[in-house]
Order: sequence, then C-alpha cells, then structure tokens
Amino acid sequence: MERSPSSVEIPMATEVHRVAPPPARTTADKLRSRLKETFFSDDPLRRFKGQSSRDQLILGAQYVFPILEWGPKYSLGLLKSDIVSGLTIASLAIPQGISYAKLANLPPIVGLYSSFVPPLIYAVLGSSRDLAVGPVSIASLIMGDMLRREVSPSQDPILFLQLAFSSTFFAGLFQASLGFLRLGFIIDFLSKATLIGFMAGAAIIVSLQQLKSLLGIKNFTKKMGIVPVMSSVFHNIHEWSWQTILMGFCFLVLLLMARHISMRRPKLFWVSAGAPLVSVVIATLLVFAMKAQNHGITIIGKLQQGLNPPSWNMLRLHDSYLPLVAKTGLVTGIISLTEGIAVGRTFAALKNYQVDGNKEMIAIGLMNIVGSSTSCYVTTGAFSRSAVNHNAGCKSAVSNIVMAVTVMVTLLFLMPLFQYTPNVILGAIIVTAVIGLIDVPAACEIWRIDKFDFLVMLCAFLGVLFISVEEGLAIAVGLSIFKILMQITRPKTMMLGNIPGTDIYRDLQHYKEAVNVPGFLILSIDAPINFANTTYLKERITRWIQDYEAEKDDSKLKFVILDLSAVSALDTNGVSFFKDLRMALDKKNLELVLVNPLGEVMEKLQRSDEAKELTRPDGLFLTVGEAVASLLLSTKSNSSNCV
Amino acid sequence: MERSPSSVEIPMATEVHRVAPPPARTTADKLRSRLKETFFSDDPLRRFKGQSSRDQLILGAQYVFPILEWGPKYSLGLLKSDIVSGLTIASLAIPQGISYAKLANLPPIVGLYSSFVPPLIYAVLGSSRDLAVGPVSIASLIMGDMLRREVSPSQDPILFLQLAFSSTFFAGLFQASLGFLRLGFIIDFLSKATLIGFMAGAAIIVSLQQLKSLLGIKNFTKKMGIVPVMSSVFHNIHEWSWQTILMGFCFLVLLLMARHISMRRPKLFWVSAGAPLVSVVIATLLVFAMKAQNHGITIIGKLQQGLNPPSWNMLRLHDSYLPLVAKTGLVTGIISLTEGIAVGRTFAALKNYQVDGNKEMIAIGLMNIVGSSTSCYVTTGAFSRSAVNHNAGCKSAVSNIVMAVTVMVTLLFLMPLFQYTPNVILGAIIVTAVIGLIDVPAACEIWRIDKFDFLVMLCAFLGVLFISVEEGLAIAVGLSIFKILMQITRPKTMMLGNIPGTDIYRDLQHYKEAVNVPGFLILSIDAPINFANTTYLKERITRWIQDYEAEKDDSKLKFVILDLSAVSALDTNGVSFFKDLRMALDKKNLELVLVNPLGEVMEKLQRSDEAKELTRPDGLFLTVGEAVASLLLSTKSNSSNCV
Repeated sequence: MERSPSSVEIPMATEVHRVAPPPARTTADKLRSRLKETFFSDDPLRRFKGQSSRDQLILGAQYVFPILEWGPKYSLGLLKSDIVSGLTIASLAIPQGISYAKLANLPPIVGLYSSFVPPLIYAVLGSSRDLAVGPVSIASLIMGDMLRREVSPSQDPILFLQLAFSSTFFAGLFQASLGFLRLGFIIDFLSKATLIGFMAGAAIIVSLQQLKSLLGIKNFTKKMGIVPVMSSVFHNIHEWSWQTILMGFCFLVLLLMARHISMRRPKLFWVSAGAPLVSVVIATLLVFAMKAQNHGITIIGKLQQGLNPPSWNMLRLHDSYLPLVAKTGLVTGIISLTEGIAVGRTFAALKNYQVDGNKEMIAIGLMNIVGSSTSCYVTTGAFSRSAVNHNAGCKSAVSNIVMAVTVMVTLLFLMPLFQYTPNVILGAIIVTAVIGLIDVPAACEIWRIDKFDFLVMLCAFLGVLFISVEEGLAIAVGLSIFKILMQITRPKTMMLGNIPGTDIYRDLQHYKEAVNVPGFLILSIDAPINFANTTYLKERITRWIQDYEAEKDDSKLKFVILDLSAVSALDTNGVSFFKDLRMALDKKNLELVLVNPLGEVMEKLQRSDEAKELTRPDGLFLTVGEAVASLLLSTKSNSSNCV
Repeated sequence: MERSPSSVEIPMATEVHRVAPPPARTTADKLRSRLKETFFSDDPLRRFKGQSSRDQLILGAQYVFPILEWGPKYSLGLLKSDIVSGLTIASLAIPQGISYAKLANLPPIVGLYSSFVPPLIYAVLGSSRDLAVGPVSIASLIMGDMLRREVSPSQDPILFLQLAFSSTFFAGLFQASLGFLRLGFIIDFLSKATLIGFMAGAAIIVSLQQLKSLLGIKNFTKKMGIVPVMSSVFHNIHEWSWQTILMGFCFLVLLLMARHISMRRPKLFWVSAGAPLVSVVIATLLVFAMKAQNHGITIIGKLQQGLNPPSWNMLRLHDSYLPLVAKTGLVTGIISLTEGIAVGRTFAALKNYQVDGNKEMIAIGLMNIVGSSTSCYVTTGAFSRSAVNHNAGCKSAVSNIVMAVTVMVTLLFLMPLFQYTPNVILGAIIVTAVIGLIDVPAACEIWRIDKFDFLVMLCAFLGVLFISVEEGLAIAVGLSIFKILMQITRPKTMMLGNIPGTDIYRDLQHYKEAVNVPGFLILSIDAPINFANTTYLKERITRWIQDYEAEKDDSKLKFVILDLSAVSALDTNGVSFFKDLRMALDKKNLELVLVNPLGEVMEKLQRSDEAKELTRPDGLFLTVGEAVASLLLSTKSNSSNCV
C-alpha cells in the first residue's frame, strides 16, 4: 500500500463513454427468460424449430424413445461389437447381481431379476450408449440398511421384500419426477468432494459387512457403523471358520490381481471382467467336489428357477410403512441417479456425444417403476460395469439387451448350478468391486486444490463411517451449501490500483506493479449485493476508508469509486445499501461514483426514488479508467477556476 | 446479434500486459484472513493497536462497559435533555408495559418489572444512545402464543410464568452467545422484505387478538390464526358488550388521531407519546366514577405493589419443558434481537455514530439473562419508543435510567391507581402501537424494485397470518436463501461485444452499439464457478457456441474467450469444469482463452496438473481488448505465413 508516488501519470481519456440504461423488458419477459435458464438451459426444443409438423412428430417420438433414432441405422458390424461387450458384462452382472442382492438382504435371485427387466427398458428409453444397467453396491447397501432398521429380513422376509419393491417404486417415481419437472440440477448439489468422501466411506462400510461371509461368522451385528461391526467381529472370534477364511483369502487375492492387471493394461479388461464368474465356477466346483458345505463353508442353497414373477401386488403404498419406503426410495433414488447420470456423462464426453440429464432421469425412473412391479429392486448404470462395457467396445444400448438375454438364459436353465456357490466368494466379489470406489489420488488432488472441499469430503467420509449413510451425506451437502452462503455473506472487496502506463485498474494485492491514485479509493465488489451481505459491506467499506485515511496523511480522500462489473444482482436491501452508503459518504464529504453497473443493477437503482440519483449520467462511468481521468480533469478545472 | 460488420476496426494493442500469478500465501494466512473477514469484519481491535498496556486496559474496560467511555464526559446540559426524554418514554412505557404483558398472557405487573431492571442493565452495557428498552409487542405475542400451545395461562398461571422466565433466560443466552461467538450476521438473513411482511402479519395478528378486549368477549379462542380468531369473534356475537365497544372506539379514535398528528408534525411527538398515559388516566377515572366495572367493562383488578421479586428459583432449565422453552427462547430471542439491532443502527446512522452489532447482542442478551432472574420477560429496544426517545432529544442511555426510576416510583407507590383501568384501553393502546408496523409504502417500493422480494414478503405475511409466526418466518427465510442458491446455480453468462472505437467490451444485450468480433465468442460469467453450476455452465456455453455457429455462417468461430473478472471463487468441481470445457472445445477445434482470472481462480487452476496448462502465460490476458487484439494479430501473421 506504499505504492502511491507523488505524481502518478494517469492517461487522460480523450472521450468518456456513457453507461447506457439497459433495454426495457417487461416482468413477463424476464420471468420467461429466467424460467428458461432454470428449467430448459439445455434448450431441448432447439431441434424442433423450423421443422414440418410431420418431422416434428418423428423427432418427438425419437426424443421420447431414443431407440427410434439409432435403431434404423443399426448395422451388423455394430451388433458384433455389442454381442461381445454384452456377453462380457453379463459374465460380470450375474455374480455381482447375486452378491449385491445379498448386500441388500434380499434373496440372491432378485439380483438376477434386476439384471433382466431394467436393462431392456433402458435400451428403449435411455440415451447413453455405454451405460450397463443393473443393481449397484451402494444403493443396495443403503436400501438394505434403511429397511433393516425397522423390519428384520430373516424374521419377516416377505414383508422385507414388499418394502424393497415399494422403495424401488418410490425411487423410480422420484427419479422420473425430477426428470419430468426438469429439476435434475438437484443432484448437482452432491459435489465431487461430497461424492468422493461418501463413496469411500460407503466402500469401507460395504467391505466391513463382508467380514461376515469372509470370516464365516454366523451371529453378526445388524448395524452398519464401523464401531459395532468391528466389535461384532472380535466378539465372535470363536465363530471364525478357517476353511472359509482360507478360501476367501485365496479368491480375494485372485480377484484383486485380476483387477490390478486390467487397471495396468486396459486392453486386458476381460481379465477383471471375467474373473468373478470364473471364481464363482471354480469355488462352486470346489465346494461340490469336497462337500465343503459340511466343513463350515456356507452356501447359497437352492434357488428358484424361471423368469421374473410379477410383483405389483406386493407394493405397499398406503399403510404405516409409507414413510419408511418413501424415505428409503428418496435416498436410494437420488444416490443411484447420481451414479447413473455421472457414468452416462463421463462416457458421453469420452465418445463426444450428448446425454440429456433430464431425459436420462426419466429413463432410469421408468426403469425402476417397471422394475418394482416385476420383482426387481433399485437399479442404475454402474460405474464398474459400464467401464467394462466401454472397454469391451460396446456401440449402443444393444449390449444391455444381449446382457439381459444372457441373464434370462441363466434364470431359465442355469439356476441349479448356483446351489453350491459358497457365500464367501460373493463377499470377495463385493470387496473387489467396491475397493475401486476409494479414490485416494482424487482425494489428494482435492487437498491440493481446495482445503474446504477436502473438509466437505472428510465430513462425508467420516459421517458415513461413524454416523449413517444419509446423515453423512446430509452433513456434507449442508456444509457445501454453507460455503456458498458464506461466499455471499462475506463477498470479497478489492482495492484497485492503476497499472502504470495503461488505463487498466487491478487488485493492488495481486498486481504488485499497480499504484494508488491519490485522492481516490477504488473498490471492486464481486458478489450480488443482497440482504445477506449489506451490513458486512457497509462495515467493510468504512474500514477501507479508515485504512486509507490512516495511511495517507498527505493526500486527502475525495472520491470513492465502486466498480460494479461483478455485481450480478441487487435486491431491495442492496438498493438501501447504496442509499445508506451515499448518505454516510456525504457526511464525510466524499463523493460516491459507480462504474459499469450491469443491466439488473442499473434498473433496480433507477426504480428507487432515493437511489435514482446515483445513476445520473455524470456520476456513472463505463470503466474505472474513464472515471478517474474524468474526475481528475474536473477537479483540476475546478481548482484552476478557484485561482 | 445482427451487428457484425464484415470489417470491424479493432484498435491494435501496442503492448500486451501479462496476467501475474497472485502472491504466494500460506494456507494459515488465508485461513486467518478468511476468519477475520467472517468474524471480525468490523475490526474491533483497531483502536487497541499501538497503545500502551495501561491504555489498552482502560480501552478494554470501556469496550466492555461503554458507560465508562461516555460517563466521565457527561454534563448537566445532557442530563436535562435526558430527563425530559426519559420522562416522555416512561409515560409511554408504563401503559405499554402493562398492555404487552397481557398480550403475552402474563400478569400486567410483569410488564412493569420488565421496564425497570433491563433498562438499567442496558444503560451500563449498551452502546446506542437512542434505544429505549422494554417489552415489545411482537416478541410478547410470540412468547405468549408458543407457550400457550402447551400450557394454559389461566389454569396453570405459576407454571406459565416459570416457562416465560425460562424462555427469557434462553433468549438472553442465545443472544449473548451470538454476540460472543461473533455470529451476529445470522440475523442478516432476515431480509428487509421478510421483516416487512412478517411485521405486517404480526401486527394484524396482534390487532385481531385485541378484539377480545375491544368487544368485551369472554370466551375467546386460544389460537392465533386469522381464521379461528374471526370465527370466534362472530360465534360469540352475543357476548359483545356495547359499553366496552363504545369506550374502545372512542379511545381508539383519540389515540389514532394523536398518532396522526405526531406523524404529520414530528415536533409534536409528545402528543402521541403522552396520549396512552392520558387515555389510561381518563379511562380509569371514568370507570371509577361510573362504576363501569358493573356494566360489562372488565378491569385489570388489584395489582401487587413493590419492586421486582427475584425469580431465579423459577427457572425450569432441566425438565420436560426444556425443548419448549429453548425453542420459544430461540424464536423470541432472534426476533427481539433483530428489532433491537435494527433500531440501534437506524438511529446511529441518523446521528452519525457507530454501534457494534456483536456488542449490542451481548448487551441485550445479558439484559435478558439478568431480567429472567428478576421477574422480567423478554425485552429489547422498541421501534416506537426509541423514536419517541430520539424525537424528545435524548442524548445518552441516561434517558433509560430516568425511565427506569419513573417505573420504580410507579411500582412502589402508584400501583393501586391502576386497579380500575379497563382492559379495553390496553387493547386500544396495543392496536395503535402495532398499526405503525404495517408499512404499505415500503411494500409498494419492494414491488417496484424486486418482484421476487415482494413474493418473499407476501409469503412471510400470509404465512404469519394463516399458518404460524415461526413457520411464516421460516418460509420467508427459506425462500430468500433459495433465491441466493438459484443465483449461484444459474449464473448469468453474457456475450460481450466491442464498443466501436475503444478497446472496451460490454454485454451485447445491454449496449446496443456494441458489435461482435467475427471469429470470437466472448463470454463473461458472473458467479463463483462451483459444484452447483458447472453442469449448467457447460450446457450454457455449448448453447452459446451452437447459437453463434447457427447465426454466422460466414465467419468461422475460432476463439472462445472467457472473461473471468467476476468469477470470485472456484472449487474442485470448477477446476474440472475448465478441464472438461477445454477438452470439449479442442474436439471442435476451438481455442479457449481466459481473461483476467482473479487471484484465487488463478491459484486453483495452477494447482491442478490438468488445468495448469490453461494458465500458461500466452493463453491468459489481462483485458478482453488485449486478448482480441493479440489473437487477431497472431492469426493474421499465421495466415500470411501460410501464404
């Protein structure tokens, strides 16, 4: 702040450009454009413009059913690729389906049902070419946990199943409504930091739950938190079964190695994609050959055969469990939606095509609504399976159809083969799948870039681990919103100085070469001025003035220039702020000058009788440079007049 | 958008100024300055700087007890003014105290107790010279209403009184904590629009409650909402007493006329200030002379004599009523605090002195804590009484002491005189007092300036009238916060054009003379880029590019320039946004150029390995003008090289 040479050379403006009043717009106009930006920011109706009504009809049908768009162009070459990738994801989907259903405390077969109907629905409605649809680990965990707090899946399995289907129905309803109402931006409130922390926490919770099958413990806690689970593990040390542990350990090593190979060399994606099915086959054969079920290794047991039975009569939508299933549906719905949309967008960006977020929500939502009446629980596009799908060279949603058909064949003919599959292998598959959700490099990057985001991440992580999945998420989202509010409540104000030899004014803290102009205090405010920050801004500007006057005894302060280029909005408190500020500066004999008010700010100041005066043409400037030059000129001519 | 002449003359920059990296600051430094701006934005320690330790001690004592600062300088001349204004507000405080206590369902004498101890405490601790302390209408209403929902004041008066004192204790504790923890900005979230709507609604609720005394109804509803009150009024039409109505009507007209006179001619402030006491005296004499209590006019009845009895043994802080009193304390505390702080700031601005918000909160909080153990209920600085105090020429908090002494004399000697005071006159006094809270011109101004603020105001108003006081407030605050979040979620992006003959670039929508530069899409974003808006911004920028390409077939788009002057912050999602945007533009063969990133933005981009490249010196410019000039030059030299 010591940089104010006694004579600064300020380039004199030859011409001063006036600030124009913004073009008049009616309230209805403004409301219309606001609503468009809020709900139709992606301009979905663009392609309907200027088309004949017949074309519009076709385009409309294609919009609702994307299959009509890509279907007619589909070729045999594409089909070949889709069959390969479809079979690959099926080999992953079958063991994962069984495992995730167990994670949700549901009969294993429900996991297979859920890998059959929903992919077919998605193939018709979805716009992503890479999404592999089916049950996912985190949504399974959350649903199982939330329902188990009120109903025991072992004592009351039918009721539990009914509640799971009902929750799925609500999840679908909620997802589809978000899409229909174009409220998709709600999932944006789960920031990257929140998701990374949340997923890592959930992965650990899921893995800890697998200690039950991996150690062969029978009396396991029903709680999810890290503390009760670990205490349950060590209190039941006498139940540990060495046969189970040995088998689990071997297959876990095998699966992790396969995962490692595929991560190192993406071309070998089929190693990790095929490993779970191979492990299931080997483990089942081992158990069958050695009659290991008699030696402490628990097996899945007899499974029903046949396709999905209808389940609409099992939906409980109007009894005392309604609040429970609605809440479970809401939480699992938003979590699985977030995963599905993120996966779709990621692969769309890689292949350079567009997915429409709101349309995807409708597709995923309808898929779950239909799923809930055909014995499926909540499904979405899974990260890991979609990556395999992408690597295996899928070209369209047909790979989902191929997968569904493979699952259908399994349901119809191969179910007896799973009877001797040991539970321990399912545990190992789940652990291998979720371990990829712990993203340490991303956490490090967040630490490097933004410490507050790291805190948000940590809260999500620890909240999920020690409190509960929903509360962990709620804390992290609350904290993220709190940060936004704090940015508004305490906006940055910067003191600007002239960059010598130019008419550019920049932050004195940032640009060391910038110099003060004696007699001028030039401030820039970079947030909307509203109820949440007017008190602060008044105090802060007073402090800037006091600081200025304390440091520069030689040059008397005459003008306070506010650069409003970054003030995007103003409310009624903001208008009062300008009135009050002007009154306060008048009492100190300081002149308040505004620079570059944007349309909305200008308009609101003009609408107030008392603040209108601030927008008279000779007190408003288009740039700080012109304001300083013009005011310097006028004071000089004034003082020479006085002489 | 038709304004792109085939050859635009862009002034060529003779020199290009580089964007400097911001000076390095440690995380601890940043945290310190962030905390200072958040909690110590008014820099309360400024005056301690550079003082000897003895002086610092004196300043510290003066900081805690402002009376030590102004006390020694106090003179006889000031005392004269303070005695006049003190007696004036006492004449208002006595009838209002009795009335407001009845509004809170408390014995009338508690209103007088509350006008004795708290003003004395405030005189020692408070920093406002104009605040007249005592019970206020809205806080009385809310406390009475919230407690009455659980305990009947007529059936269980002792318990009700205990709960009132306990709520007062919590209100004080909450207020003082806000001040100690420097969280005073929380009350800023009650915006002007919220307060105007809320006060108008509360004034109507309060006035409707007075129909009980004004019409002489005995079996009145215990609810607050407008619907149950009106139905109670018309269902009990047989209880209406014409004597009461006549008396109430006459005095109401008298009081409203007095108010009108004082509003028209502020010098006659004493007319409305003295009117309530005069009315009480006349009405009491009338009742006494005509034995009107036997003709349907209810009277206050015998009142206890003597000063405030101690009440700390009546605080119920650890039983089943704790949640009730804590909630009541919280709501009344925040409402009365808002009123007190707003009154203090308003008059401080008029007389050009400072009040320290956080210090005031501590003063008001301690006053209520002490009050709760000396039989007082919640008090604060009242709008109406402070205005009278100010108009009567008060000079310091001594006017509060004078008022307290007057109330003391009343308590000691004059209580029997109030025995025959009719309840109807208290109702008339309350209605006259609260009618001033309905601020129609302010509501009109809000409608003119900001339609959304008007909606917030309407929600507060209707919520208070039809739902409840707390929920009305909560809806309005929620809506205000929602608006801020929407501004962040859907930030404005503007397309900039060159103002001919200058190197200034401004919004094409706003400045009709501005023109497009062919081949350039220049966008400015005016909000922090974070998790809540990155998805939107990606879609919006894609749309700008599509619009540009659809309209200008002649000139091929080459550069997308983002003016980041108004992007005040970036989070990890924001960093990814730049990475993704660059990747997407690369695929379309467009170059992304950033202009004037502020310190924080620059720093965060540099910390990310993948986004770092965006901040290489030759892709960053200090102004849009320099960016365009320099890029035009380089493309020209490239094309001439090709030739």
